[in-house]
Amino acid sequence: MKHYLSIHDADDLTQWVDEAIALKKEPKKYKSLGADKTICLLFFNNSLRTRLSTQKAAMNLGMDVMVMNFGNEGWALEYGDGTIMGEGKSEHIKEAAQVVSQYCDIVAIRAFAKLQDKIKDEAEEVLEGFTQYASIPVVNMESSVAHPLQALADAITLEENNAKPKPKVVLSWAPHPKALPHAVANSFVKMMKLQNAEFVITHPEGYELDSRITEGCRIEHNQKKALENADFVYVKNWSSYSDYGEVIHQNTDWMMTAEKLDKAKFMHCLPVRRNMVVEDAVLDGNQSLVIEQANNRTFSAQIVLKKILETIK
Amino acid sequence: MKHYLSIHDADDLTQWVDEAIALKKEPKKYKSLGADKTICLLFFNNSLRTRLSTQKAAMNLGMDVMVMNFGNEGWALEYGDGTIMGEGKSEHIKEAAQVVSQYCDIVAIRAFAKLQDKIKDEAEEVLEGFTQYASIPVVNMESSVAHPLQALADAITLEENNAKPKPKVVLSWAPHPKALPHAVANSFVKMMKLQNAEFVITHPEGYELDSRITEGCRIEHNQKKALENADFVYVKNWSSYSDYGEVIHQNTDWMMTAEKLDKAKFMHCLPVRRNMVVEDAVLDGNQSLVIEQANNRTFSAQIVLKKILETIK
Amino acid sequence: MKHYLSIHDADDLTQWVDEAIALKKEPKKYKSLGADKTICLLFFNNSLRTRLSTQKAAMNLGMDVMVMNFGNEGWALEYGDGTIMGEGKSEHIKEAAQVVSQYCDIVAIRAFAKLQDKIKDEAEEVLEGFTQYASIPVVNMESSVAHPLQALADAITLEENNAKPKPKVVLSWAPHPKALPHAVANSFVKMMKLQNAEFVITHPEGYELDSRITEGCRIEHNQKKALENADFVYVKNWSSYSDYGEVIHQNTDWMMTAEKLDKAKFMHCLPVRRNMVVEDAVLDGNQSLVIEQANNRTFSAQIVLKKILETIK
Repeated sequence: MKHYLSIHDADDLTQWVDEAIALKKEPKKYKSLGADKTICLLFFNNSLRTRLSTQKAAMNLGMDVMVMNFGNEGWALEYGDGTIMGEGKSEHIKEAAQVVSQYCDIVAIRAFAKLQDKIKDEAEEVLEGFTQYASIPVVNMESSVAHPLQALADAITLEENNAKPKPKVVLSWAPHPKALPHAVANSFVKMMKLQNAEFVITHPEGYELDSRITEGCRIEHNQKKALENADFVYVKNWSSYSDYGEVIHQNTDWMMTAEKLDKAKFMHCLPVRRNMVVEDAVLDGNQSLVIEQANNRTFSAQIVLKKILETIK
Repeated sequence: MKHYLSIHDADDLTQWVDEAIALKKEPKKYKSLGADKTICLLFFNNSLRTRLSTQKAAMNLGMDVMVMNFGNEGWALEYGDGTIMGEGKSEHIKEAAQVVSQYCDIVAIRAFAKLQDKIKDEAEEVLEGFTQYASIPVVNMESSVAHPLQALADAITLEENNAKPKPKVVLSWAPHPKALPHAVANSFVKMMKLQNAEFVITHPEGYELDSRITEGCRIEHNQKKALENADFVYVKNWSSYSDYGEVIHQNTDWMMTAEKLDKAKFMHCLPVRRNMVVEDAVLDGNQSLVIEQANNRTFSAQIVLKKILETIK
Repeated sequence: MKHYLSIHDADDLTQWVDEAIALKKEPKKYKSLGADKTICLLFFNNSLRTRLSTQKAAMNLGMDVMVMNFGNEGWALEYGDGTIMGEGKSEHIKEAAQVVSQYCDIVAIRAFAKLQDKIKDEAEEVLEGFTQYASIPVVNMESSVAHPLQALADAITLEENNAKPKPKVVLSWAPHPKALPHAVANSFVKMMKLQNAEFVITHPEGYELDSRITEGCRIEHNQKKALENADFVYVKNWSSYSDYGEVIHQNTDWMMTAEKLDKAKFMHCLPVRRNMVVEDAVLDGNQSLVIEQANNRTFSAQIVLKKILETIK
């Protein structure tokens, strides 16, 4: 069974990107592939882009779609093995995952990091629970530590906008008032390690990502130096990983500006806080790729669903 | 690009009403028109009729439908220009509107007046924000100051039930325990000004609607006098406009009764509070058109979507 | 008009079960039957299985589906006759039911017992209100006192797994931390009374179900004795009926275990609290039918919708 839990589940990233770009030109070409197939989108957290783009991708492939906000429409789930369920949880992941598998052919799940407990977040109890007990393919619509549909959309966007044999791509941390998860940054780094690019990660000291993920990447604490001659600048906030889930300092001087960006293209997964993460001039200027990235979410989801549908025909 | 933000966006009201009545007879006639087209319904407020009738209308036209409760499923939106987004708002309308435009062909939006600040409500930040930044047609499913899908359904209902060359139509204010917006009344008045009818607005002093909208209309503070020989009585509560958003007094004697109604047909947009806005005898009697009005919501939405689809084929 | 409010609305249970089993083999066989027909699923309470399986059943029959969480997406409903609606309720069931009837061909409703007031719960104001005022068929997706889609799925599961001319089936009460409604047990008892089986109900004293429903059934307070030589054990918690809605004592020794189950098949409607209602060993063992029961929810809903669609073609 073919899941899509990590960007590494794309067995040939270059080919998937090329196929996604082809799908973008003819979105309805495979409309018969998903006929009489159903996808269920389960949201444990809010969503705008993922909700709409994954629905759209499934409909482009002719699938039926069922959307469910698990938090307030379903039952609170228990994930522990052997628990005596005498408290607030009404249903165990073992049943929930098997039951959902009776009603659809693919299940897609969004469950964010809670940023309270690193070990618990990294255990990915929701996504891993569904993967372990479901009898159908599972798609990650952003879990505690990964957002591989976003990373695939980012790869598509890079491919469409790159003119160089080996572009320079910078992942630049940005200030944010709230503590945010590492999922987007993690998946972007993993994806970039598969690209033929000069890749640099820049952030203030204390905001190091999981070193198992960034292993082998150049990390530069001087933002200005990191940005020199960049072709693409991917901006994203994340909270501290070592001091888990903390906003250790505001570093408002790390906000991306048109001046810092220079001639590079600007990327962000959205939602983005204007004049906090990035100034208006960048988002409103013509070097911004953020809307195209959002558009490419449809085609990253569509290539993933197409690849899965081809295995369950 | 063709939006439907106001009843005035129906370029020929009489013809739209006639076409809607024809659609009602053959709802599936244009099922191929919306094939491979998607509408997204975004709700910032509760909805029963609008939610179901607009979905139904879109499905009658063969469209795919995505429904989203923006408030609790998406991200809190910022509308201000140049704001430093360091507070509770996660996404700016500029991005949200452009992003939604990537995933659908038409977007329909419901965002009520908050009745706290007249200037802010009249700025229609949600509807206007989407209209300004979206790259697709926008449909108003009730905004702060207008409910043109309701007014179009009302026009259809009047046309179906009128036997006179120039009927008398009365818009009669009704008591209500809560402060309600002016949107329904505003759009009804605008629509009536396009009709060949004797039109009278009646309400207690202090409940004057926006004079820019009622300009040229007969306003009568004596309800009994206003209702004399009426053919249609449209009942609706609204809060004070001058003392913005206030319930200035209860005026329970303004409730519509069978006796007051006499031989006129009764209209209301629903939901309606029984024995507060109107007595049971009226709603349960055969002069009430409220269910037919609700039914006509499907066809007012359907003619609007059909007109828009014809421009984006 | 054909409603499905109670298991007794299946006019020939054996035949419906056989037809459902046939549908399970060819779920899409009647996909043209529901073409251009719409079902609206209205949820006043949470749901996982019912939400997804009823959608799936409707889609298998080619219907369009509209799902609505009435509680937080619609308006608070008033059910009383003649009430002056000056408090929190915005809409009367009379209008709501008639209005929903304008937009769909079948309406399905979930509204649980509140367990505060027996007379009010037994009046089934939501389900009965819709049944009385809607002009379309109504399907019960679990009301205060009945869950006939579950009972029909249970009948299908029994039929598929039974090898004896007259099997022994035991309904065994189980401990639970929260007060739960009687709906599932009631409908299971009603269904079993239509079966050729040796049927026993077992529960601690004080947990007697409504005697009008259990009339003629063997009730045994000694769980061990009840379970002797059972072929199927259906486990379910319910709160007290006489001391209405109370958890009178915890009776944790009534939990189902593999030892107690012996060679019988285990059934439960789900969601189930592990190691409270039933121990892990049962759910994880191969005598458990719970996932198959959940799967059969699709086909119980599908046969119900098929029977209704055949009357409204």
